[in-house]
This record gives sequence, structure tokens and C-alpha cells, in this order.
Amino acid sequence: MSDTQTPAPLSREEVEALLLRGPFHHWLGLSVVSVGEGEITLKATWRPEWVVNAERGYVHGGILATLVDLTADWALVSKTGRGVPTVDLRVDYHRPAMKGDLTCRGMVVKFGGQLSVAEAQILDAEGRLLASGRGVYMTAPPK
Amino acid sequence: MSDTQTPAPLSREEVEALLLRGPFHHWLGLSVVSVGEGEITLKATWRPEWVVNAERGYVHGGILATLVDLTADWALVSKTGRGVPTVDLRVDYHRPAMKGDLTCRGMVVKFGGQLSVAEAQILDAEGRLLASGRGVYMTAPPK
Amino acid sequence: MSDTQTPAPLSREEVEALLLRGPFHHWLGLSVVSVGEGEITLKATWRPEWVVNAERGYVHGGILATLVDLTADWALVSKTGRGVPTVDLRVDYHRPAMKGDLTCRGMVVKFGGQLSVAEAQILDAEGRLLASGRGVYMTAPPK
Amino acid sequence: MSDTQTPAPLSREEVEALLLRGPFHHWLGLSVVSVGEGEITLKATWRPEWVVNAERGYVHGGILATLVDLTADWALVSKTGRGVPTVDLRVDYHRPAMKGDLTCRGMVVKFGGQLSVAEAQILDAEGRLLASGRGVYMTAPPK
Repeated sequence: MSDTQTPAPLSREEVEALLLRGPFHHWLGLSVVSVGEGEITLKATWRPEWVVNAERGYVHGGILATLVDLTADWALVSKTGRGVPTVDLRVDYHRPAMKGDLTCRGMVVKFGGQLSVAEAQILDAEGRLLASGRGVYMTAPPK
Repeated sequence: MSDTQTPAPLSREEVEALLLRGPFHHWLGLSVVSVGEGEITLKATWRPEWVVNAERGYVHGGILATLVDLTADWALVSKTGRGVPTVDLRVDYHRPAMKGDLTCRGMVVKFGGQLSVAEAQILDAEGRLLASGRGVYMTAPPK
Repeated sequence: MSDTQTPAPLSREEVEALLLRGPFHHWLGLSVVSVGEGEITLKATWRPEWVVNAERGYVHGGILATLVDLTADWALVSKTGRGVPTVDLRVDYHRPAMKGDLTCRGMVVKFGGQLSVAEAQILDAEGRLLASGRGVYMTAPPK
Repeated sequence: MSDTQTPAPLSREEVEALLLRGPFHHWLGLSVVSVGEGEITLKATWRPEWVVNAERGYVHGGILATLVDLTADWALVSKTGRGVPTVDLRVDYHRPAMKGDLTCRGMVVKFGGQLSVAEAQILDAEGRLLASGRGVYMTAPPK
């Protein structure tokens, strides 16, 4: 009997290959630092298009929201074996994000057969928390 | 006596010029369709980098979250005269977004001298609701 | 062929009777003012236990969150024929709520066969917006 | 020079006395289990009015939202020395809450001089996670 909710664990390389099939993930310069049971760490590579405020150089909140969404989503990959649809997303902004690559840590809050909740933190190179948040994800097996 | 919270109304062209000073806004192909008291309508121009799922062509939820954030933010422009910092953002995903330009409608829920709440809807070319949500924005005058 | 998602419309009295089967709804002094396709208006009766700050008499934010949750939930009743489980809830607080009964208006944002989004506004006797918010609800038919 | 943001640490008894000045907190049967730097653990005492579904005995989601709100709020008490206004609240529901007292754990995510973010988990007697969530709180000193 197969259990579609508990696939064989994917390696870091396999998760990175899956993740980078998405053109937007490619554009974000993502790489997988590590992946574990219900958790993941990613890196995103700063690019000049991310900036919202040309004078001060702040990264757009939408980039941080994107990273919260996808990092929480892929924290579920040890359970889902793939990226899954987001039902809703909530993001808190803690500090302005300046020029520099970002570290993204994701963690499952609750895994369920239909819906799951996961969270993520976005950190700068000095380890300061820039943004964090949560999403609800559709983890029912695809029909 | 000046009131920093009620600037002279900005024209559509003036708001568009302010908005497009942000490199990420430029990348999103934004234009201002109309602007009014506590409301705004924007357009965003589809680009191939937006896609998350190369086979099915879905737009990444992070793009939709970005559009909810910035549209709600700029719905406040008749009060603020500028883009303002986002405190937090909440986005609901209603339908997959396929290839095509997007219409973004923003509306103020509650304007306050320190914090304000605004909401936005993201629609496809057929007027279908793809995503919607709300943010809290820091509308205190800059120090 | 039956369609479990489109029950015969319930009258105001029928919805009120269903709603008041819940002991907590009873305690909140709820009544149904009107019910329509994808919308509802309720009243809640102030009681001294609602207060969080004894000196100033503010109503606890948890009471307002409760009213946002249940009003958005029951805005779905024309589709669901019953109260449904809440997946998640988001509430914005706009003004302190003082002593007095509250009017609660709910509206469907997007009805879906598995998940739906609905929103609600909580108003005081003068029609001022005290709190508003949204929830995601599980609208799949019960197994 | 006084620093209103770093009051002398309050004891468990002092926090409990402050908390219980709120009539709604009294009604919820709250007690403080422990309080530390940026964290708190509370207990809430089940009462029959909490029930939403008389047949199945589920606790109303509004009660759980209330507990998330106040627990996250009072996790800030080592910084604030008092309960503070909630700006917005987000709650995820993980499992139905049945009859029984609840344990509520709160933790600061980010403390700021104007706004802070804190989170809370609501657990049943077996330690199962029933609900969790976050709020933004107004931590500016009162004028």
C-alpha cells in the first residue's frame, strides 16, 4: 500500500532541482542550503530589480512576502515531495531589508492530509530577522 | 496651519511617476489606470519570469502578494502623497493566475494618523478575482 | 441529482435557530437581523463580562475577533446551510469598542467547493467601524 | 532618566493580578503558570459557555482566537509592564478543541518601540496543538 503523504526523503540536490524548475524561483537566485524533516533553509541572491526605494535601497516587501511564501511551502517538501498551492499567506515586516543576499528558514507548524500550516523567517547576512510569517497550504494529494 | 496628512490631490500622472521610481515597480510593468480619494486602479504587465510552474504556466503567488501589498499601499496615496512602509500583509488566493496582464484595485479600509488598513483585489483580463487581501501601513508622517 | 452546496434558502428565523444552538452564540446575545445570498447581518448584545479594561470599559479584542469569525462564517449559510469549520482568521482593530450592542455584517468574498473566504465588519450603534477581518472556511460537504 | 520600555521585571503573581483586572480575563478563568523575558505561559479554565456545537462539544474558535490574542499580548509584559492594544490578529486552527482546560504559551517574535509582534500556541491537556497565531501590538509608551 502506498502512502502518497510520506514520499522517500529527497536530497538537497533533488529539492533544489525541483525548486528551480520554476522560472520565478530561478529569477530569485534560490539555492537549497539544507533540507530536513519538516524544515528547509534556502538562500536568495540579491538583484537590483528587488529595490522599491531607489534612494535608500530597500528591498520591496513583495520580495520578502514571496520568500516567506515559498520557504514555508518548501518546508513541507519532506511530506509532499513537491511544491503545493498556497491557500493564504500572512507576513510581518520587522526591519528594512537592504542590499544583500537573504537566508530563508522554513518550518512546518502542523502537517495535515488536506491542509497544512508552515512558517518562515527571512534573515540578512548578519542574521537579523527582516520578515517572518506563515501560510496555509493545500497538501491533499493531487487528483 | 499645514496638515501633513491631507496633501493636495495628485494626478494619475503624478502618482504613476512616483510609483515608477521603484525599480521593482518598473519590473512589474505597472501603470496607473485611475486614482481617487482612498482608491486606486493599477495594471501590471505579465512577464515570463512570473511563472512558478513551467508546465502549467501559473503565476507565482509571490507576484500576487506583491501586487496586493503595493496596490493597497498606493490606495492610501490620496492621504499620504507617497508610498508608505508595510507593517503586515495578508493574502488570500482564489484562483490560479495564468498568462496575462493583471488589474489591481485598491481601497482604504480605515485611515489613521499612525496606522492605516487598506485592501486590494487582483483580477485577470476577464475580471475574475485571482487574489485579494489586506495590509496594515505606517501612515505616521516621516520624522 | 442533489447539489449539497446549494441548499434551499433558509429564512431569517431558521438561520437564527441554527445559530443559537451554539451555547457561545447564546452567551453573545446574537440575533439575525437579515440574511441574503452570500451575506448576513447580526446583532450582539453587550454584557459586562466582555470588558478587558475595567477603568475605561473597552470590549476585549477577543470578543470582536469572535464576532468577525462567526459573522463571516454565517455569511456563507446561504451556500452551506450550516456553520462550517474555520481554517484561519485575520482581524484588524480600528477603534476601541465601548459599552453597547454591536452590529455585525458578513459577506462572502469567494465561495468554493472545498474552501471559501468571507469577511465581516463590526460596527457600533453610531455605525462606526470598530473591527473587520476575514476568514478561510472549510466548505467541503461533511463526509 | 527613566526607560518606559524596560520596567522592573514583574513576578508571576504581579502579572496575574494585572491580567485578572480585566473582567473578560476573569471569565476565562485565567491563571499565570510562569512568566519570563519575552514569554509567558497561562492556563484557561473550560466553561460550558465556550461550546459552539452542542452535540459534539467543540470549543468556539472565538475562544481560541481570544486566547491567542491575549497570550501573545502578555508575552510582551516583561517589556511593557501592562497589556497593550492589539493592532491585528491572525489565528490558525489545527484541531477541534474539546472539553477541558487549555494551556497557552506566548513568545515575542520582535519587540519594537512602536510596534511589536508576538505569537502564541494553545494546547490541550495532552499537549496537542489546537490553535496558534500571531498579533501585532502597539508598544509605544502611552501618551
